[in-house]
Formats: sequence, C-alpha cells, structure tokens
Amino acid sequence: MKITMAHGSGGRSTSQLIDEIFVRANSNPTLDMMEDSAVVSGGKRIAVTTDSFVVAPLFFKGGDIGRLSVCGTVNDLLMRGAIPKYITSAYIIEEGADTEILERIATSMAETAKEAGVNVIAGDTKVIEGNGGVYINTTGVGIVRDSVDIKSANCRVGDALILSGTLGDHHASILSERMDIKNNIKSDCAPLVDMVRNMMEAGVDIRAMRDVTRGGLGTVLNEFTKSSGCGFELYEDKIPMTAEVAAFAKILGLNIMHMGNEGKMIAVVAADDAEKAVDIIRSSRYGENAAVIGYVSDDKKVVMNTNLGGRRIITELYGEGLPRIC
Amino acid sequence: MKITMAHGSGGRSTSQLIDEIFVRANSNPTLDMMEDSAVVSGGKRIAVTTDSFVVAPLFFKGGDIGRLSVCGTVNDLLMRGAIPKYITSAYIIEEGADTEILERIATSMAETAKEAGVNVIAGDTKVIEGNGGVYINTTGVGIVRDSVDIKSANCRVGDALILSGTLGDHHASILSERMDIKNNIKSDCAPLVDMVRNMMEAGVDIRAMRDVTRGGLGTVLNEFTKSSGCGFELYEDKIPMTAEVAAFAKILGLNIMHMGNEGKMIAVVAADDAEKAVDIIRSSRYGENAAVIGYVSDDKKVVMNTNLGGRRIITELYGEGLPRIC
Repeated sequence: MKITMAHGSGGRSTSQLIDEIFVRANSNPTLDMMEDSAVVSGGKRIAVTTDSFVVAPLFFKGGDIGRLSVCGTVNDLLMRGAIPKYITSAYIIEEGADTEILERIATSMAETAKEAGVNVIAGDTKVIEGNGGVYINTTGVGIVRDSVDIKSANCRVGDALILSGTLGDHHASILSERMDIKNNIKSDCAPLVDMVRNMMEAGVDIRAMRDVTRGGLGTVLNEFTKSSGCGFELYEDKIPMTAEVAAFAKILGLNIMHMGNEGKMIAVVAADDAEKAVDIIRSSRYGENAAVIGYVSDDKKVVMNTNLGGRRIITELYGEGLPRIC
Repeated sequence: MKITMAHGSGGRSTSQLIDEIFVRANSNPTLDMMEDSAVVSGGKRIAVTTDSFVVAPLFFKGGDIGRLSVCGTVNDLLMRGAIPKYITSAYIIEEGADTEILERIATSMAETAKEAGVNVIAGDTKVIEGNGGVYINTTGVGIVRDSVDIKSANCRVGDALILSGTLGDHHASILSERMDIKNNIKSDCAPLVDMVRNMMEAGVDIRAMRDVTRGGLGTVLNEFTKSSGCGFELYEDKIPMTAEVAAFAKILGLNIMHMGNEGKMIAVVAADDAEKAVDIIRSSRYGENAAVIGYVSDDKKVVMNTNLGGRRIITELYGEGLPRIC
C-alpha cells in the first residue's frame, strides 16, 4: 500500500497506520501510546538528546534508517555516561512511500531498541508531499547516576585517547551504495551500550566520550579543543581501519579523519586506566578493534603524527562532506 | 543567506549555523548544548511526548511553525498532568531556505518556550534537498507528581466535558492562508500551562484531558470511547466558536467537529467540579470562552444534540482532512 496525504490527517487513516505498522512492530507497546504523552518512571538526573535521520538510501549494507535512528540516539546518551531508557520515534513520510518499506524500518527499529535495552514510549506520524522519502526523529532519555560527570570539558593533559574500532565504515558504505560501487564494506551502525556499561562498572576514570558521526573524528576532536582548552596528539599508525575502507578512501581522495561512523566512539580516559579501558572495550560487543590512538596535549591543536614522520594539523570538516550520511 | 547542503555536513558550516541562529535565539542556552546530550535534573515520574511539525505556510495569522512546535508539545505534556520542563528542537531544513526565516522561527520558538516555562536543552540540524521547506520535531519532558493520574481511560459516566474555548480557529486560519482568503481569523496556537496548572492547584478532579489538534474534537472523543468504553453527549448550542469561523466553516462545508485547533483542550472532570473548573479556565490565560459542552454517557458513541433537536452521530475524521495543518 502507498502512503497518501490521508495518512497524515490525524483521523482514521493515521490511527490505522500507527496500529498496523508502528505499534505492531513493537513487541512491547505501552498502553500510553494512545495518550498524548507517556508517563514513565524517571530519575534524579536525566540525560536528553535528539537527532533526526535523513540518510539516503534508506537501506544499506550493515543497517537501515531504523537501526541508525536508534543507535545514533542511544549512543548520544551513553556518551554522557547515561543509561539509555526511553526513546521516541517520529516519522515524517513523503507521499508515495510503500507501507512495506515502513514495516521493515519499524521492525528494524524495534529490534535495535531491544538490543540496546530501550523502550519506544511515544511516536508521531506526519505526511508531506514528495516521492516516497522517510525521515525519522528519535529523542532519547537516559538516567545518570549521581557521581557521573563525563563531558568534553573534563579532558586533562596526559589523558589517553581510545578509539573503539575502525574508522570510516559507515561513510564508505553509504557512499558505495550511492555510487553503485560493488564491495564488501558494511556500515558499523551499532549501539555501544555494552562497552560503555562495562567501563563504568569497572570504575574506569572516563573524562569524556563522543561517538564519531558526521564530520568525523577530526571534527569531534576540534570541538573538544574548544570546550576543554586542550589539544590532541594522534598517531596515524595506531588508527584502526579495515584494508578495504583504507583503500576506498585513498582511491576517492577522502580523509579518514572526516569520514563518519555510526558505531564507534572516542573515549578520553585517565592515562593510568588506559590499558584497562582498552581491554574492557576489546572484550565488549563491537569493540574488538579498540586501540589507544594518542593523548591529550596542551597546545589546543589536533595534530596527526604521520607514518612518514611528519606532523599534520587536522581541522574540523569544511564544506559539505557527504550529504545525508545519517 | 541561503541554506546549502554544507550546513548539514556536521562540520564548520553546521556549527556556525547552530551558533549564529539556534543558540543565539535562546536567551539562556545551556552549556550542555555543545555535548551529545544534556544532563538535567529529573523526577521520580516523568512524561515524554514527541511531535513533528510540517505546517504550510510557515507563518500564519496568530503564529508560525516555531510557536506551534513548542505549543503542540507542551500541551501534550500538560494533558497528562505533567509540568513541562524541557524541550528538544530538531530542524530538518530544505536547501535554499533563507537563514532570516530560520532566525524568525527560532526567535518565536524561544519566546514561546519562555512563555510556557520550558528550557530548550538539546537540538539537531539536518539539511535535505528541496525548495526551502522547514520541518521541526520537538520532544518534551515534564515532571508528574505522585498522585496525578490523568488519562482517557479514566472517564466515568456522568462526568462533565469542558471545552476550553472556540473550535476551528487554527484550521480556518491555515486554510485561509492557503486559499488566499482575506479575513481576520487568527490561529489560536497557545501553550495551555496556565489553565492546567490552575485547575490542578485548585484540586479539580480531572479524569482526562486532550488538546484538540488535527482530526478535531470528533476524532479525540472517538478515541476516548475506545480507551474508556464510555460515550459522549454533546450539545451544539453549547460549543464555543467565533461567528467568523462558524461562517467560514459553513461556506466551505467544513464540519467544525473535525477542524483542528492548537490552543484548545477538552477536559473531562467529575460532575461536581464542573462549575469550579469552568470558572478557573475562564479566568486563566487563553480560557475566556470555556464552557461545559456535554457529559460522559454509557453508550460508546459520540452524539451531537443539534440546534434543531436532532441527534447526530459524530465519527472520527475520515479522509485527508487538511494536509499539513500542523
């Protein structure tokens, strides 16, 4: 069935669409779905984050917009040391979208939410003119324990920089789909609950964390220089990447430091805890390639120590990067 | 300046756009805006709601998409008896949108948030191809006191139905703009914080509340029949509407019961508290035309007792209504 403007009316067609696709996809829909807002148990300190997803194409190797929309928001909560609890799901659908596509997306969202341990507690559906496109906003709420204080301003000179795995996978996967290049590169789109929870439970002294999404690691670290007043020394030979993504980036002239991921994070931890943290991440789901890639310096720049022995300044991303990567 | 795909890159252009427009519009931006999620104080019970806004045109008499996007979400929280505290703001912007337009929208959002007593604590910006359109998702978080239990399932036979003001204003305003009909009809777009807080503080026995948006009062009450198992008897001569909206609806053959508002609510309260509740709403902001319009019955239908002495069944909205009304 094709979506029509009637599905956005707020009347009978809207409620049928919600019941038959979005509620059905959730194995455990709350009764509150029928109300204007969901009332749930909270906590003394909560973390809140919002993200819209406009990725094209909707389906790609390693994921789809549904999985992406849960991972992106869950990861944003984790990066502040919050335990993700709830997620909302708001669809803007272009006329002509196929309900079969929506079902696949909603099912993927529900599965990823289950994996990440979050409940989808509220939703919304709007329809606009267009040509079958789908845009999803997810907003997440998590609980933050009293003692937790993780933010980029907390970086200190000498801290270790840990990257949780290979760079560039999501970016290369999306670009391959769009350019119709045949390869085996898969998006790394994943919820990072396991590695963050394990580090926190083991008492690792985490100063800051950030998932490496659009703009890439170069942009993240340049943002960290602004909030922390610190700089970052990186070592090119330490940065994990697959041979296939490295070759892909080289051929297309892409800078791996500006390529987006959707299942990787950079963690800044106290130097004394670096080895322990890497071990924990490596033995956690999605963290098998984690490595220390550098340290926090005092010169407010992001510097790459290259394989050829040079030192190169890494800037934030300028220009348009890869549009609609997430 | 016109928005380009570069503004969605996640790099330099995105952060400039956020700093210069969205952060600047907020008189009290939190430092957490620079992080992946905001960490704020919560509460034992929280209410969460999400809503995307795709209204066309972006500006209309009585409001704009910015004001609408705050009111819609704040009102959804209030309808569960929650005190609205936080709101997120996620923009999907089509290429070619003018930054001056975005500034006006962001300023309007900030002013409305201030009026409603909520803080904008997180945001997101994405850019898609298109022709200057703007879509906004807001997600709201509110605090619910322990004793509060307001939901549509709680309606009981004999309860009074109170409408907080005139029906159809927002709908007629949007349709007038689109059809280029000159009149003085203004959208009623408003946050209903004052009337809800006043009722709760006075201890009114509120069973259920719902803001009357797309789909209209007819759709809301039909949803209530499903969740509560009750029916509703309405009296046509009691339903507040302005002469201008009534005439507009008559000329165009619109059913006032399916026209959307954005600053009106229907409240179901214990019969004994009806008079008190109407007095409170009437003396609250945006509630001067409140009236008891009917009562809860036991026959699972929504019935209008017409001015001519007839009884007419009111259904939910079928078909497409007015596309992109909110």
